[in-house]
Amino acid sequence: MIVIGELINSTRKNVRPAIEQRDTEAIQKMARDQAEAGAHFIDVNSGHFIEGEPELLQWLVQTVQAAVDLPCALDSPRASAIEAGLAVHRGQAMVNSITGESERMEALLPVIAKAKPKVVALCMDDTGIPGNAKARVAIACKLIDALAGVGVPHSDVFVDPCVLPVSSADLEGKAEHPGEIVVNVMREIRARYPEVHLSGGLSNVSYGLPKRKLINRAACLVYMAAGMDAAIIDPLDEYLMSLVRAAECILNRDEMCMGYITADREGKLVV
Amino acid sequence: MIVIGELINSTRKNVRPAIEQRDTEAIQKMARDQAEAGAHFIDVNSGHFIEGEPELLQWLVQTVQAAVDLPCALDSPRASAIEAGLAVHRGQAMVNSITGESERMEALLPVIAKAKPKVVALCMDDTGIPGNAKARVAIACKLIDALAGVGVPHSDVFVDPCVLPVSSADLEGKAEHPGEIVVNVMREIRARYPEVHLSGGLSNVSYGLPKRKLINRAACLVYMAAGMDAAIIDPLDEYLMSLVRAAECILNRDEMCMGYITADREGKLVV
Repeated sequence: MIVIGELINSTRKNVRPAIEQRDTEAIQKMARDQAEAGAHFIDVNSGHFIEGEPELLQWLVQTVQAAVDLPCALDSPRASAIEAGLAVHRGQAMVNSITGESERMEALLPVIAKAKPKVVALCMDDTGIPGNAKARVAIACKLIDALAGVGVPHSDVFVDPCVLPVSSADLEGKAEHPGEIVVNVMREIRARYPEVHLSGGLSNVSYGLPKRKLINRAACLVYMAAGMDAAIIDPLDEYLMSLVRAAECILNRDEMCMGYITADREGKLVV
Repeated sequence: MIVIGELINSTRKNVRPAIEQRDTEAIQKMARDQAEAGAHFIDVNSGHFIEGEPELLQWLVQTVQAAVDLPCALDSPRASAIEAGLAVHRGQAMVNSITGESERMEALLPVIAKAKPKVVALCMDDTGIPGNAKARVAIACKLIDALAGVGVPHSDVFVDPCVLPVSSADLEGKAEHPGEIVVNVMREIRARYPEVHLSGGLSNVSYGLPKRKLINRAACLVYMAAGMDAAIIDPLDEYLMSLVRAAECILNRDEMCMGYITADREGKLVV
């Protein structure tokens, strides 16, 4: 499982001050903690700060990469910030994210063409997030093709079906169930594109429900079973990480369960 | 999710004495605890005691049904015991289990034809438990047809693909991965027989691994995502039950998440 650590995010109220004040120590601690817990990418989001965002994202990338030997996922709604972040990033970065929105594609594709990062492709477009799996799959296909057109191979694309709150099920019955859509998009993309990764930003799924972590953890395992091999999550949730390692044993993604057994020896599994 | 409570089982060393000594109080407490925790069937297994098993299983059925208003799953390798248990069972029982073994089919089908119970159909036959999904699906189909032939509708059949330890992956590479086989059998049966239930005896899956409960819980969620709608589990594992309720929200099996929200209000969810 490819873990994208979500903690360094300016939309999180308790993290925002550290970003605003350029608190190197706090940011680097969050980066190190996530790396130690098993993150493969450190997401850096400066999207809350519109003014001066390009420099802020550059500062985040450099601050994180000075502390840990990991790539960042550059998380911003603005192509200018992503371009600036890519310019100072060491190694192959991840861009989080492109969508099927025409303005966003137009702005981001040239930037992506130049830097050849890994790219999260969100299943939404100018009409918003479709309420059915078929339309989301169509957007994913469009994005996979557009990215291939600027030199991004399937193996560098991370399709994110858009994980919406399961509590938001449409009472009028027009939309498919938000949880099932994700399962169905993942299965379809996995069948069509064996090399494309499947990712999800999971924390939204539990919005509006009690015991949110329980829902997030269950969603992570259900989506892994549907083919998800990457996730934007909190790697400091030890119980979630333990369940992910266990699920990898069931799904034949951990040869001889050695990853699981090693994690146990290192005291990383909680029951 | 249809929960079959597994605790009253003579193969469990710490439970065996209560069965041997016909300890009514202990057995009834186990039945009540499982019912309270959300079990829909109470499994009763007397298989360890070969001598006098029919009477012992009758005693278990009557003792359990005197304490809780639930059906039992009659769990024995011997048709004579199952027949005796069915004779005293109130309401529609579950038989756990028939297999594709010719001797077992021959002995059990007439008993089943008479009592019309729900039936767990295990994917094994005279050759043992096949090391690939295709052969297990073939056994399941044979059993579904044989059961239909004696009047058991698809909706009363619970196919169990045989959950083997994931630590037992075949080093020589002849067998498919034990975890993946279960996923693939479930998906295939779900596609072919929409009304057949899919069940699993989950506690074997973690044999030989540390932190077994973690593996059992992950397996339960992964198999639910593959279509499993019943499981033979320990309903007193609150964390497992909480994750199952959460997974039902993701999989659109809990309308408006009301089951989950109610469980939370009743203090039944643990994080």
